Amino acid sequence: MRQAIAEAEKAFLRKEIPIGAVIVSESNGARRVIARAHNLTETLGDPTAHAEMQAITSATGTLGGKYLPDCTLYVTVEPCPMCAAACYWARIGRVVWGADDPKRGFSRFGADLLHPKTLAVKGVCETECSEIVTRFFQKIRNAR
Amino acid sequence: MRQAIAEAEKAFLRKEIPIGAVIVSESNGARRVIARAHNLTETLGDPTAHAEMQAITSATGTLGGKYLPDCTLYVTVEPCPMCAAACYWARIGRVVWGADDPKRGFSRFGADLLHPKTLAVKGVCETECSEIVTRFFQKIRNAR
Repeated sequence: MRQAIAEAEKAFLRKEIPIGAVIVSESNGARRVIARAHNLTETLGDPTAHAEMQAITSATGTLGGKYLPDCTLYVTVEPCPMCAAACYWARIGRVVWGADDPKRGFSRFGADLLHPKTLAVKGVCETECSEIVTRFFQKIRNAR
Repeated sequence: MRQAIAEAEKAFLRKEIPIGAVIVSESNGARRVIARAHNLTETLGDPTAHAEMQAITSATGTLGGKYLPDCTLYVTVEPCPMCAAACYWARIGRVVWGADDPKRGFSRFGADLLHPKTLAVKGVCETECSEIVTRFFQKIRNAR
């Protein structure tokens, strides 16, 4: 999650909503970071360019298949339904997030947006993950 | 929708689940196709490469912004939650689909996966859109 937070800080510097994601492959007893990404919706002008979506595309590209059963997605904020459903299609092994998103977090729409085999863990480095987002919106308000 | 069906036929020929999508911009009184795409999840090994996702990324790239309020997405099968939530983030004006997807269609998870300003229309060329998918899975079964 530390590396996902570092990605969120990169997004902050690019004036993007600061959310970061990392995917770790845990097959064959070895842990390996296979994707790092941060939100780029403003930079790319693409509403689908959430950190998780880019990380999933990158990870499947690295592993050469469209499924990620032996992988964990670490993301600083609870995935939205788009990203949760992308995790479903990727059959990702585990999703770990920091801060909840009561407004557009996927869990408001039903836990079965994730694949039944996907383990969901929340609240990891929660304070730090939500502090970045709070700091970002405070900065925007102060700039007005 | 005819052009979306033509995209689905292209997917069929590539041995992809045959779903096609087209985005039409309707601003300034003129209608213009600004994106065409078909499912490429197998070809790209990317579980996020649904027809709608590619069409949204392409359309926002063409228009130079991340919102599509004056656009209609025509897609042969009801969008999944990933694609519906992508439509939400794009604030797309209208989503029109052919065949329902009772298993992974977004409406099973709640209509508010779409943006409140998005108009949803279903059942356009429904028989033709569902026939392509039925034909695809019959062909797979026969090949076994």
